Amino acid sequence: MEQERRRIRMPNKEVFPKGSQAVANFTGAAFVNMLVPDGSGTYNCQVYDVIFEPGCRNDWHSHPGGQILLCTDGIGYYQEKDQPARRLQRGDVVEIPPQVEHWHGAAPDSSFTHIGISPNTRKGGATWLLPVTDEEYQQATGGNNHV
Amino acid sequence: MEQERRRIRMPNKEVFPKGSQAVANFTGAAFVNMLVPDGSGTYNCQVYDVIFEPGCRNDWHSHPGGQILLCTDGIGYYQEKDQPARRLQRGDVVEIPPQVEHWHGAAPDSSFTHIGISPNTRKGGATWLLPVTDEEYQQATGGNNHV
Repeated sequence: MEQERRRIRMPNKEVFPKGSQAVANFTGAAFVNMLVPDGSGTYNCQVYDVIFEPGCRNDWHSHPGGQILLCTDGIGYYQEKDQPARRLQRGDVVEIPPQVEHWHGAAPDSSFTHIGISPNTRKGGATWLLPVTDEEYQQATGGNNHV
Repeated sequence: MEQERRRIRMPNKEVFPKGSQAVANFTGAAFVNMLVPDGSGTYNCQVYDVIFEPGCRNDWHSHPGGQILLCTDGIGYYQEKDQPARRLQRGDVVEIPPQVEHWHGAAPDSSFTHIGISPNTRKGGATWLLPVTDEEYQQATGGNNHV
């Protein structure tokens, strides 16, 4: 019975170890494991694993070279400016074109894990903008956009 | 008891659905799910999930823009030309520099799943070379290179 309860609460083991807590650009606690930092620029691409605690999301931002998210665990959200939020779960893939302002993060009642891929890093890093307010987050995650 | 046996045999649910069987460049059966085909070239990057059946490996090949592997399930191997093979498991990351001749695939007695990332696709696709012979595969996977 204890076994079963544990399985229901944690159905999937994380693929990658939990990284360090992010110190900026997030509301709430997120843990980032840089899998491919590409310090030499050989790949023109960075890869990282992010675990968001429930309610955590990053600030509005954009990438000059675009971004790809591979959702691996939990429930999350992705929202582009002036668009309804998209609810995300394990197996979902998000393509974020260059320069599109957006945020991503966990559902209010679930953690969320995604692999992030930033291609074309030679074009520069992310442009960070304002935090996602509680009102914006509640509207994005509490409405009738659940699929 | 039946529950427990099932959990032991399949400890990790696949993150992505099984794709179509590859029709070329593999010895044995591999299933490729193209997650980000990037037909428009927006991301200069392709992302795909590959499930290798036990004993399956791809042919020797190289990528003009390099390749990154994120290992998510099972046991596999990665070998560069004239180097000992590296044994791979869930959570391992492989960085394959541009133009380096190599192969990857499953262990003889285990399936293997990895996410593949091909950055810099504008530089061109993979150059496919000879199949990995049974002798090469056996030497790579059956020796004392187990870690």
